Amino acid sequence: MENDRSAAKWTKGTLALFPVQTLILAAPLTAAPEPAKPLTPSDIVAAAPASAWRTIPAEDLLVIDYDAGGRTVVQLAPTFAPVHVANIRALASGGYWQGSAVYRVQDNYVAQWGTNDDKKPLPPGIVAKPPAEYVRSARGFAIRPLGFADPYAVRTGHAGGWPVAQYRDGSVSLIHCYGTVGVGRDLAPDTGMGGELYAVIGHAPRQLDRNIAIVGRVVEGIEQMSALPRGTEALGFYKEGSVARKIASVRLASALPAADRPSFQYMAETSPTFAAYARARANRNDPFYRVAAGGVDICNAPVPVRRTPAQ
Amino acid sequence: MENDRSAAKWTKGTLALFPVQTLILAAPLTAAPEPAKPLTPSDIVAAAPASAWRTIPAEDLLVIDYDAGGRTVVQLAPTFAPVHVANIRALASGGYWQGSAVYRVQDNYVAQWGTNDDKKPLPPGIVAKPPAEYVRSARGFAIRPLGFADPYAVRTGHAGGWPVAQYRDGSVSLIHCYGTVGVGRDLAPDTGMGGELYAVIGHAPRQLDRNIAIVGRVVEGIEQMSALPRGTEALGFYKEGSVARKIASVRLASALPAADRPSFQYMAETSPTFAAYARARANRNDPFYRVAAGGVDICNAPVPVRRTPAQ
Repeated sequence: MENDRSAAKWTKGTLALFPVQTLILAAPLTAAPEPAKPLTPSDIVAAAPASAWRTIPAEDLLVIDYDAGGRTVVQLAPTFAPVHVANIRALASGGYWQGSAVYRVQDNYVAQWGTNDDKKPLPPGIVAKPPAEYVRSARGFAIRPLGFADPYAVRTGHAGGWPVAQYRDGSVSLIHCYGTVGVGRDLAPDTGMGGELYAVIGHAPRQLDRNIAIVGRVVEGIEQMSALPRGTEALGFYKEGSVARKIASVRLASALPAADRPSFQYMAETSPTFAAYARARANRNDPFYRVAAGGVDICNAPVPVRRTPAQ
Repeated sequence: MENDRSAAKWTKGTLALFPVQTLILAAPLTAAPEPAKPLTPSDIVAAAPASAWRTIPAEDLLVIDYDAGGRTVVQLAPTFAPVHVANIRALASGGYWQGSAVYRVQDNYVAQWGTNDDKKPLPPGIVAKPPAEYVRSARGFAIRPLGFADPYAVRTGHAGGWPVAQYRDGSVSLIHCYGTVGVGRDLAPDTGMGGELYAVIGHAPRQLDRNIAIVGRVVEGIEQMSALPRGTEALGFYKEGSVARKIASVRLASALPAADRPSFQYMAETSPTFAAYARARANRNDPFYRVAAGGVDICNAPVPVRRTPAQ
């Protein structure tokens, strides 16, 4: 079993995947040069120039620290769900989630956390009933298409560092992939205030796209949620009185002391490196592979994210 | 945050999703009847008649019991990878995996288990170098198409209770979805003997389709693998000398005493119930949803599996 990060050794077996023309042109000139080792998506990301990366603003990072240690960092998506994200920032700043918990872990679906205590006082400025920020107009919105068929949307691609889908009516939504963070809600037209959040810990539940407010994605520490014991009650909820993991605090990175403030960068989809990365994701030709897929689904071409390198 | 199994209460909001014709026809006759509550995929599965189900033969069930308790059951796929599956049956019958372990858990990818000790004697009858059972001819092979676009294949659907993809060259493969079990291998042309197996515990890694021998799927107890702490070494491997979980035994269900022998059934894709289930998966219209997707990807329409009901 291999993986993107496997440093597979070069073998002659992969030669057949190169275009035949390359070999014909190269042969008559001199002794045939050693063909370049095919790059994995991870190789391409590792070699990306600084210009391919964008630093995520500290006020877009939600830092979840657990009682027992460990940290999960979520990048917020204010462009797509501004009212929900404003609520979440205010809840974090107001200390709303101190002493809250991860209380639902459903296998191949979601881990959910926060506070569902109706009596807990809200910090000032919370919009109790946010609008349904599920889709937005595609107008003025540059999408880099991924270029492959999708069962859910007319097309998929990336915009502003996020995976997006465009639909027949022209609207655009963020996409539920592994690690996507959304706002728990009750039956429509409720959209959720933001006090209960979930992260996807299984196969992309795309049926939720356009039906729920996506507010971000986990950029570090998803395993603090995905590796938790599954809840034993219906829908993966923990039994009354027990929780999967206690949360010590949820804060914006901008509110943390500089020494403890994490910083991350995402790869801009407008960069040539991203284009090469997406191509490699769809056409794996490193030595492990016999057949390149020739396509990739949007959740299998995740936007590369890294810790901001030290200056 | 909802789920298939949510018993959402009926609301008027879903009315708009019924075909208008139904309402027009019904209205003039008498007082309009209460519209039927939209069924979730789980509702449909729960109401399936006995004729929709096929019992999985006991020699197709691999039962993994852990030292610390807990059990994972894998359904084998002999039609697709007969030589690999014959190896696996012989390894199980020979007690090859007693005292083995889950030694790799990589987030959003795979959990891997078995024995990679080259010196461990093999039971008789093992084919040391199985053929590349990655694809097969579509001829004589009835596929029920799912009917939606796919980024990896010309079409996807179900055959004999398994998710399958058909490619431009006419070949057919099983598909890597959540819970799919495959045979770990080194670089091609190695196909793996079957002594090391993995289960998918994240978003479908479809790039592996046609590149690795798929031999089955987890039908119960995936959380015994998916909820394990992630390995801290490269590719999610555990540190030398430590393992994620010790395995007490791996046996075929047919070798277990009757009282301890699990039995499962899958839903035949040829049944009307399966067609209704797949339609509902692609067109969720229970009260939680504002917009039905109008499509579904093959790994988001998993074949329903259940414990065989008591007679």
